[in-house]
Amino acid sequence: MSDGAEKSKRSNYHGRLEYTFARNMRDYEGYSIGKLLSLINDPKIISMAGGMPSPEMFLQEQLRQATRRRFDSHIHRIMQYSSIRGEGELIEAVIAFLQRDDIHVRPENVMITSSGQQGLDLVGRLLLDPGDALVVERPTFAGALAAFQMQRPDYLGIELAADGLDVVQLRQVLSDCQASGSPPKFIYVVPDFQNPTGICMSLAKREALLALSRLYHIPIIEDSPYRTLRYCGSQLPSLFSLDQQQGGGSVVGVYTFSKLFCPGMRVGFTIGPPEVISKMTNIKEGSTLNTPPYNQEMCADFLTTVDLDAYFQRCHVYYQEKLRVLLEALETHFPPERGVTWTRPDGGLFLWLSVPETVNTQSLFHAALGFKVAFVPGDAFYGEHPEYRHMRLNFSCPSSDQLKEGVRRLSDCLVRTESVVDRLQRSRWSINQYT
Amino acid sequence: MSDGAEKSKRSNYHGRLEYTFARNMRDYEGYSIGKLLSLINDPKIISMAGGMPSPEMFLQEQLRQATRRRFDSHIHRIMQYSSIRGEGELIEAVIAFLQRDDIHVRPENVMITSSGQQGLDLVGRLLLDPGDALVVERPTFAGALAAFQMQRPDYLGIELAADGLDVVQLRQVLSDCQASGSPPKFIYVVPDFQNPTGICMSLAKREALLALSRLYHIPIIEDSPYRTLRYCGSQLPSLFSLDQQQGGGSVVGVYTFSKLFCPGMRVGFTIGPPEVISKMTNIKEGSTLNTPPYNQEMCADFLTTVDLDAYFQRCHVYYQEKLRVLLEALETHFPPERGVTWTRPDGGLFLWLSVPETVNTQSLFHAALGFKVAFVPGDAFYGEHPEYRHMRLNFSCPSSDQLKEGVRRLSDCLVRTESVVDRLQRSRWSINQYT
Repeated sequence: MSDGAEKSKRSNYHGRLEYTFARNMRDYEGYSIGKLLSLINDPKIISMAGGMPSPEMFLQEQLRQATRRRFDSHIHRIMQYSSIRGEGELIEAVIAFLQRDDIHVRPENVMITSSGQQGLDLVGRLLLDPGDALVVERPTFAGALAAFQMQRPDYLGIELAADGLDVVQLRQVLSDCQASGSPPKFIYVVPDFQNPTGICMSLAKREALLALSRLYHIPIIEDSPYRTLRYCGSQLPSLFSLDQQQGGGSVVGVYTFSKLFCPGMRVGFTIGPPEVISKMTNIKEGSTLNTPPYNQEMCADFLTTVDLDAYFQRCHVYYQEKLRVLLEALETHFPPERGVTWTRPDGGLFLWLSVPETVNTQSLFHAALGFKVAFVPGDAFYGEHPEYRHMRLNFSCPSSDQLKEGVRRLSDCLVRTESVVDRLQRSRWSINQYT
Repeated sequence: MSDGAEKSKRSNYHGRLEYTFARNMRDYEGYSIGKLLSLINDPKIISMAGGMPSPEMFLQEQLRQATRRRFDSHIHRIMQYSSIRGEGELIEAVIAFLQRDDIHVRPENVMITSSGQQGLDLVGRLLLDPGDALVVERPTFAGALAAFQMQRPDYLGIELAADGLDVVQLRQVLSDCQASGSPPKFIYVVPDFQNPTGICMSLAKREALLALSRLYHIPIIEDSPYRTLRYCGSQLPSLFSLDQQQGGGSVVGVYTFSKLFCPGMRVGFTIGPPEVISKMTNIKEGSTLNTPPYNQEMCADFLTTVDLDAYFQRCHVYYQEKLRVLLEALETHFPPERGVTWTRPDGGLFLWLSVPETVNTQSLFHAALGFKVAFVPGDAFYGEHPEYRHMRLNFSCPSSDQLKEGVRRLSDCLVRTESVVDRLQRSRWSINQYT
């Protein structure tokens, strides 16, 4: 906007002052799914839309005990300011937690964040200028888009197959970028039980991705909220640990405890080279100061006093059963001839369902609310060129009965929508016959 | 940096990948005072450097009780995700809290933040593009500079007098900006017991500032962390309430409960026109999602169950006595002939001390550590053209005995430093005589 236009806009509003927003923010609308979830306010609706872990898995008694114990020993420290990068005890607990996963870091590689979303925001602020390119999966996590979008970057979407992103396409894109002199700033991936698809990247693709990152000198941002939630099959090494075996430095890992312990804690962490962690700590300092000490202490307490193997095992059994129920219901209601397909994840909280091309899942979402069932339309998960025939289904939060009934309602809704689409198309055909 | 230079830098580091930071972040170092405080690690040092409220004022028993009560009634809600803009109960409690101060807002005017620092960061991200101008006081709050600096703006500093900022200079600056076609995006002020000076803006200046804001259509950001901490004299109306009396919309108010209740809670709020609050909520969504529910519930509980008049009165008596001790110690050790001056605040946690021009408080800081006393050198508090003969002294955290002894040590250190400066100057004079 020119200065003149800006000035006239300012004095426009009945003499009342108008605020001129920064260029990055003028069209920014936050997390698209947030607005959508706010439409689901009828308690009769069975929602497979959210991304919440089940409260049945929350360690409530642990939280009570840890609170009592730590209030008794040092309540004044909990109520005061604390270190920006994170409390030493929690950083040590995170280091031990990562060792379980064959990741070996030192305190200078770790920074505590106010959950994974802050980690993603710090990544975007640290690395992206407006117009910079970054690589994302197609589809990708909508919350990451919400974080990165505040820098107005350009997205280079790479298609996702059943075993992870298309590394052949990625190689071509990186090679084209190199030729044109504008390499992407980073490659953002969720390798384990990705949100929204539940897809897990194969070991071969992990290795190919790392090789491309090294060949083209493009860092990888590995977002791992669901990594611990594997219900079957054997765990694959993280990109971070594979990279460490080759000297390290190419991967920044973004983690949260929201899905493992509870989202209300708002605690996560980011790992990476010391120069990256140190600069991110500066940005965190300017944006929120320290993560609340109480929340960090609860997290440290969980990590050090809970039997993690037993707890995760309990989560796995619980969520695996939910996933089984959902898959069974989908098979019951969507036989092959209906043209509906879905992913079959080995972990995480979501699966990805695709409907026939004639159906638009944005419209279907609104129709589905009438059938008292909700999902997230798939177009929210694309950095560019959204697709409209997919949806994300969550199975962690609804009960097994709700999952069964929810799929039945979804099936009914889809039947109705398809018949409307069909009638419309036939009427268009008959009009065309006479014109 | 050119693309070529960037590429060569990337492949430089023994084949290890280098990260190219965004332009806004390359020179960004966070909160300058943070680094300084980390140098004060000898427990024998009496620190008047920090900005912490006294733990003696923390409502520890209240925190225990509120935690127990709310865990008993809805621990699962505390452990789950919650509203980005803030929990309804806390927003209502904030509205009631503001009514005590003659500010009348509705829920759509309020957003809960993870403390005042997040409020300032959201203001900067919402309103500033790189190179935009904003008005700040000279000196101003260093944490606000740390937030705004991430957008690389230009600072227009307005001198601060004993009764607040120089409105004549401000008028001239705004008029010059209008003439040159680049108005500042906002005017940032801490009208009540400003950090670092403790200065309180007079009513006449508040009215003049508002008139200028309206005349030039420049919004005011009113940061009020210390407003409730007035120890003598009568409260002046906030800029927000004065603006409301004239129709409102010119002021965004940034608040925190860090100094009133406890910093560890990490809860604050921002008030303003609905379109500003709504856009800030989007930015908060992309950067941290919700403020932790536990922390919001504790804050709501404090606001609704504590006798606030009695509690604030207790804080006033406690801090006023600390301030009295500090002022008395300064009078004892710095008689007028020493050329040291200081402010005499009616509230807040800080005062501002100025030493003779021959002394640089940055150097003095390091000398003072040898004398086992610490303060914050004043240059941290300037957006542009820092001054080096001031320091910020905090009186909320040290005990009365520490304040007395701290000032004695500061006086000794200053005597030593001045005699060194004096010798150096005389030796220069004598060298000059012979050359």
